[in-house]
Amino acid sequence: MPNILFAARPERWTQYERPLRNALVEAGLPGANLTTRADPAEVEYIIYAPNGPVSDFTPYTRLKAVLNLWAGVEDVVGNTTLTVPLARMVDYGLTEGMVDWVVAHTMRHHIGIDAHIHGQDGVWRAGIVPPLARDRRVAILGLGALGSASATALAGLNFQVSGWSRSPKQIDGIRTFHGPDGLQKILKSAEIVTLLLPDTPATEAVLNADTFAMMPKGAVILNPGRGALIDDTALLNALDTGRISHATLDTFRVEPLPETHPFWAHPKVTVTPHIASETRVESAAKVIIDNIRRGETGAPFLHLVDRDLGY
Amino acid sequence: MPNILFAARPERWTQYERPLRNALVEAGLPGANLTTRADPAEVEYIIYAPNGPVSDFTPYTRLKAVLNLWAGVEDVVGNTTLTVPLARMVDYGLTEGMVDWVVAHTMRHHIGIDAHIHGQDGVWRAGIVPPLARDRRVAILGLGALGSASATALAGLNFQVSGWSRSPKQIDGIRTFHGPDGLQKILKSAEIVTLLLPDTPATEAVLNADTFAMMPKGAVILNPGRGALIDDTALLNALDTGRISHATLDTFRVEPLPETHPFWAHPKVTVTPHIASETRVESAAKVIIDNIRRGETGAPFLHLVDRDLGY
Repeated sequence: MPNILFAARPERWTQYERPLRNALVEAGLPGANLTTRADPAEVEYIIYAPNGPVSDFTPYTRLKAVLNLWAGVEDVVGNTTLTVPLARMVDYGLTEGMVDWVVAHTMRHHIGIDAHIHGQDGVWRAGIVPPLARDRRVAILGLGALGSASATALAGLNFQVSGWSRSPKQIDGIRTFHGPDGLQKILKSAEIVTLLLPDTPATEAVLNADTFAMMPKGAVILNPGRGALIDDTALLNALDTGRISHATLDTFRVEPLPETHPFWAHPKVTVTPHIASETRVESAAKVIIDNIRRGETGAPFLHLVDRDLGY
Repeated sequence: MPNILFAARPERWTQYERPLRNALVEAGLPGANLTTRADPAEVEYIIYAPNGPVSDFTPYTRLKAVLNLWAGVEDVVGNTTLTVPLARMVDYGLTEGMVDWVVAHTMRHHIGIDAHIHGQDGVWRAGIVPPLARDRRVAILGLGALGSASATALAGLNFQVSGWSRSPKQIDGIRTFHGPDGLQKILKSAEIVTLLLPDTPATEAVLNADTFAMMPKGAVILNPGRGALIDDTALLNALDTGRISHATLDTFRVEPLPETHPFWAHPKVTVTPHIASETRVESAAKVIIDNIRRGETGAPFLHLVDRDLGY
């Protein structure tokens, strides 16, 4: 049974110990020795964070692989003492959790769940049926891993899905747009807009007074991407004029969102506390232990870093 | 341009006239003559309800097809004066609207949207993330057209979906159960249970004190099926003990649900006013006009009734 060293900060151990032990049992490795302190000469796998206690891999003479806890490997890939395979974290939970959040809030606004949750007053309001998903136009701004997966999930539910990115992209079943002209086109008809763009100087306040004015009256904004994608003051104005009927926001320019921020009390805003894209320690632990199981059974490691490319 | 007679009750004309005219424009037939009164010798298509004004088709000498507004054709299929093709209503809106409702309320309970809608109090509750859909067990009781479509949509979102029906059924990607033993098995692990069974003596109160007791603590019930599937008193008890954490109900033993019924005021119940499976006049109108367009362009009619089989 393999000797596994957990080499990250102590607070990570608190989070990860139980999920890792559960994952070991599930992987058929209940006898593995998982520890935060070990004789380097005995260690076969290191579960690793670049800001943890290990920076010199030389003493780890029996090492089979290093499993990075982070998606980014820029702080370890150049370490010349590391000569065994290095895997980066590819957490399916990050993408799947995002898709769950985007689908849930899109469906919520699509069929108008809030009115039912708030309207339990004994009055039977029959006959008010929402349009079908196939007649609802939704837009995803940002077509990276999270945006593409969200767009594909919504298309699978029959929504009319458009997607926008800075440079041209093709995704099956999605009508794609790019560049400034494309942004105007996609916003013009989008009833529910989800922001999944990266936070760069080019995307700063991509939704602002000008772009809100392009959108159809009553559009809904979902922002699980980055707080800086929205001009907060312009959003509050657009909500007050009715241009935007509701915003559900998971990311903010300052987090935690200050208690006094007008988003909290605004009747047309739902704040969620940056939970859409949380790394799931359970899924991250499974990804790491699966790689150890692979090493023990002779299967190839997954998510290996190419040292030459640097990722 | 075709002459179309709308032969149903006046209240149907009120509902359908605008959607039908919109559908004609969309189908490239804006010049069609759609009316409720016409010289029978001029009429080419009849949009028909068996309880409407036409029962003798003999005078309709130019008739090309009869488009039934109802899914059921038992009141017209035996009419010997009807010698042209007869199409029944196959409203994709009925199925798709149901799938929208089931997916929306499943996602709502899956990620815990209510807590966010109710919890806009300025307190940033980070770190509470729901399980992923792939780790959530949902069950659909009833695997007819609506149940199968809902189960398939949820499986497409990565949920662990099980389905139950009285007799054995196979559906790709769904773990299926049947019979009384199967019911016990499926309820034992279902976190979110959707009822889409028909209302028959065998399904009366299928959810009752005994079957609620089989379910895991904190399970959620969705009932867009039939009110009679649930023993209301047993449900209220199960909600009060916490066995069931929430019920979202769209169908009831008496509709409209009386204002004094305890479901309205119960904090763990959401009442929706029988909207999940409403026929959409928009989609029904499109289905009918699409068939007229087919007749006008020489394409074969869809949803034709086989007179020998009777459906």
